[in-house]
Amino acid sequence: MRYSKLLGRSLRDIPKEAEAPSHRLLLKAGYIDQLMAGSWTLLPLGWRVVSKINQIIREEMDKTGAQEMLMPLMHPKEIWNKTGRWDDPRVKEIMYQFKDQRGKEFGLSFTHEEVVMDLLGKHIHSYKDLPVKVYHFSTKFRNEPRPRGGLLRAREFLMKDLYSAHVSKEDMYKYYWEVKDSYLTAFSRMGLAAKVVEAAGGVFTENCTHEFQVLTSGGEDSIFYCPSCDFAQNKEIFEGKEGQKCPKCKKGIIKISNAIEVGNIFPLGKKYAKAMGVTFTDSDGSQKYPWFASYGIGPTRVLATVVEVHHDKKGIIWPKELTPFDVHLVSLEGGQEAAEALYEAMERAGLEVLFDDRDESAGVKLSDSDLIGIPVRVLVSRKSLGAGGVEVSRRVDGTSEVVSAEHLADKIKEFYES
Amino acid sequence: MRYSKLLGRSLRDIPKEAEAPSHRLLLKAGYIDQLMAGSWTLLPLGWRVVSKINQIIREEMDKTGAQEMLMPLMHPKEIWNKTGRWDDPRVKEIMYQFKDQRGKEFGLSFTHEEVVMDLLGKHIHSYKDLPVKVYHFSTKFRNEPRPRGGLLRAREFLMKDLYSAHVSKEDMYKYYWEVKDSYLTAFSRMGLAAKVVEAAGGVFTENCTHEFQVLTSGGEDSIFYCPSCDFAQNKEIFEGKEGQKCPKCKKGIIKISNAIEVGNIFPLGKKYAKAMGVTFTDSDGSQKYPWFASYGIGPTRVLATVVEVHHDKKGIIWPKELTPFDVHLVSLEGGQEAAEALYEAMERAGLEVLFDDRDESAGVKLSDSDLIGIPVRVLVSRKSLGAGGVEVSRRVDGTSEVVSAEHLADKIKEFYES
Repeated sequence: MRYSKLLGRSLRDIPKEAEAPSHRLLLKAGYIDQLMAGSWTLLPLGWRVVSKINQIIREEMDKTGAQEMLMPLMHPKEIWNKTGRWDDPRVKEIMYQFKDQRGKEFGLSFTHEEVVMDLLGKHIHSYKDLPVKVYHFSTKFRNEPRPRGGLLRAREFLMKDLYSAHVSKEDMYKYYWEVKDSYLTAFSRMGLAAKVVEAAGGVFTENCTHEFQVLTSGGEDSIFYCPSCDFAQNKEIFEGKEGQKCPKCKKGIIKISNAIEVGNIFPLGKKYAKAMGVTFTDSDGSQKYPWFASYGIGPTRVLATVVEVHHDKKGIIWPKELTPFDVHLVSLEGGQEAAEALYEAMERAGLEVLFDDRDESAGVKLSDSDLIGIPVRVLVSRKSLGAGGVEVSRRVDGTSEVVSAEHLADKIKEFYES
Repeated sequence: MRYSKLLGRSLRDIPKEAEAPSHRLLLKAGYIDQLMAGSWTLLPLGWRVVSKINQIIREEMDKTGAQEMLMPLMHPKEIWNKTGRWDDPRVKEIMYQFKDQRGKEFGLSFTHEEVVMDLLGKHIHSYKDLPVKVYHFSTKFRNEPRPRGGLLRAREFLMKDLYSAHVSKEDMYKYYWEVKDSYLTAFSRMGLAAKVVEAAGGVFTENCTHEFQVLTSGGEDSIFYCPSCDFAQNKEIFEGKEGQKCPKCKKGIIKISNAIEVGNIFPLGKKYAKAMGVTFTDSDGSQKYPWFASYGIGPTRVLATVVEVHHDKKGIIWPKELTPFDVHLVSLEGGQEAAEALYEAMERAGLEVLFDDRDESAGVKLSDSDLIGIPVRVLVSRKSLGAGGVEVSRRVDGTSEVVSAEHLADKIKEFYES
C-alpha cells in the first residue's frame, strides 16, 4: 500500500478532548475517524488491525470446537419480553428501543442470549445434540450516557460473542474454564496480560461471572487483586480495602489498580432456557433445561487497549501479531528509485508493506512512522545505499542495522518468526 | 466438522410459505434460520458460504486498488439532512428512523454516501489525494413492507458497498467501468452469469445507473434485453415492449425475463460533494468538487440467487468456489471405522470435510447429502471397501467412481483445481 494513496493519513491537529493515549494516537495516526459521539469509522489502518484481532479470536474459538455464524442485530421486542429483559430498567437505559412505521417494536442488540435460545429451541431436541458452541462477530449498540476515550467506551462497537449450551452444570463449567484459558491465550497473542477478575453478572445473571481486565492507568474500572495469588475482584463485589491481607492466600497484600475490561464470561445456568421454555430429552427420556453460558470479547475495545499498553511518547508500538503492515518502507532523498524496487520485491516475497512514497521531509516521514507504530521500518536513502543497503530499525527499541537489499525480506520474516 | 455436532442440520418440516427454491432449500438444509419477518440468522453452513462470497468480492475489490474499512451503521439525522435525503418520502418509507432516550434522532443505514462524503471532507484536500476507493462489508437495514423469499428480500442483510471519489468525470467513469468488469468477474466466480442492465437511480441519483441482474424465473424484477447485443434495461426505464426490434443493434428481438438484482453501480457525480460542501484543490489551485460514485453487492442475496440458479429436485448444487465444505463424507454400515480414519486424513491433507457420522439410514444420509449440495461426496461402506476403496460421486451429474483411500485427497484436490 502506498501511503500517499491511503485514506486516513496522520493528522496535525486533533481535538483537545482526545486525552486517553489510545484515543489521541489512533486518531492522530489515521486509524479511526469520528462520525458522532461514541461512533467511529475504522479507517483502512484501523480495520487491518481489527481484522487481525478478529482472526486471532476466531482461531482460538475454533480450537474449542465452536462454530461461527451470524445473527441479526435488530431484535423483536417479543423475544426480549420472554426473559423479562425488555422492561428491565438497566436494559432500558442502554438499549436502543424503537417502533417502526407500522408500530412494531424493536431493540438494537447489545447481546444475543434471547436469539441463541430461540435458535436452540428450534434445533436442539436430544442430549445427543449437546453441547452447542456457537459464536459470531457483529456490531453491538449501547446507549452510553457518556461515551469517552475514543473506542474505549463507544455507543457502537464490535463484539465477538460465544454461546454454549450443555446437558449439565458440570459440562457447562468444564467448557467455561476451557474458554477462560482460550481467552487468555488470545489476549496474550495480542500483547495483553489480562487478569481474570470475579464480578457480578449485571443484567445477565445473578451468578458470579468473570471479567478479563488489563491493568493500566488509563482504565476506568477499578479492581482489587493479590500480587501473590490469582485473587482478583472488581470494586462492585470486593468487600474490603486496599492494603488488607488477601482473603484467599492469606499472604499477599491487596492492591487496587485501574483496568480496562476487554472480555467477560457468564455462567448463565438454566435461567434463559426456563424463561423461554427450551428443553431437551436426556438419555433417560426425561425433559431437561440445558445449561447455558455466554462469553464476550470486544475487538474494537481491544484495539484501543493494546494502544493504551503499547505506546511511547512518539506513538504506537504494535505487537507483532497485530501490526497493520509487516514493514513501513520509507524513502528519503536519493533513495526513491531503490525504494520502488524494494516495495515490489518485498510484496512479491509475501510481506505486507506500507510504502511512504510521499515527497515530504525526513522529519515528517520518520515521525509519522514512529506514530503509526509498525514494528519494522526500512529506510532507503542515499546515505543507506552508500553504506551498502537499507537501514532496518525496530520500533520497540529503536535499534537499527544496515541490511543488503538481497537479504531484506528474509531478515524481516526472521524477525516476525522469532 | 462432524455433522452430528453441527448447529443447523436438515429439517423435516418447513413452513409452507417457503415457496422460492432458495428459501425452501436453504431453510430445509440448515443454512438459515428465521428470527422474524425479513430477518435471518446465517447458521454455520450459511455463514461458511457467505464468507466465501465475501472473500471473492474482497479479492476483486482489492484488485481495483480499493481499500477495506468499516463504517458505523447508526447515522445521525444531521448528516442525512445535508443531502436532503432524511425527509425524502422514498427514504422515509424504507429507513428505520428513531429517537434515543434523550431525543436525538438516528437512522439505521441502508447506504453510506453521506458518511463517506463526511470522511472525504476531513481527509481529502488536494488532487494528489484522489482518487479514493474505499469499501466495507456491513449490515444494512431496509424496512421492506413485504419481505419475501427468505434472503431474497430481507429487512436486515449484508452489503458490500464501495465508494470512489475522483478529480474528473472522465476519471470517475474510467473506474466505474473497471468496477463493472470487476463485478462481472466476481459474479462469474460465484457461478452467476449477471447481465448489466440500465436503470434509474432512485433515491441515489438522477443519472442513468447499472444493475447486475441474474435472469431466473424466480426473480421479482423484470428486464427487457436483446439476445443479439448487450442492450438491457429494467422495466422502469424501458420505453417499448417485448417482441419489438432492439433499439440498439436494430437486429435482435427484445425479450423480457424475470431477474434478481445482485448488484448495482451508481455514477453519482458532484451532487453529494456539493450538498455537503466537500472540495479539493486542483493542480491549478482552484477549488473543485470531487466526482463521486458508489457500488453495491448484497452477499446474502447472492447466496439465495446462487441457490435459485444452482439446484435440482433433490437440493442445492454449489459452484466449486462457494461450497461450505470441500467434501461430504458419509459413512454407511460397515464403513464407520474407515470413515473416521479418512476424516482425519483428509483434514490433515488440508481439505474441509463435513462428516456425516450419524447413526441414520443410508436413505436419510444420502438425501441429506443431496440436499446440502457439496460438490463431492465420499461414501464409505462395507460394499465400497469390498470394491477396493470409497465411492466418490459428483453432485452436479451424479457420476461416481471407486477410489482407493490413498489417492482420495489428491483426487479431490484435482477436481477442485480443474
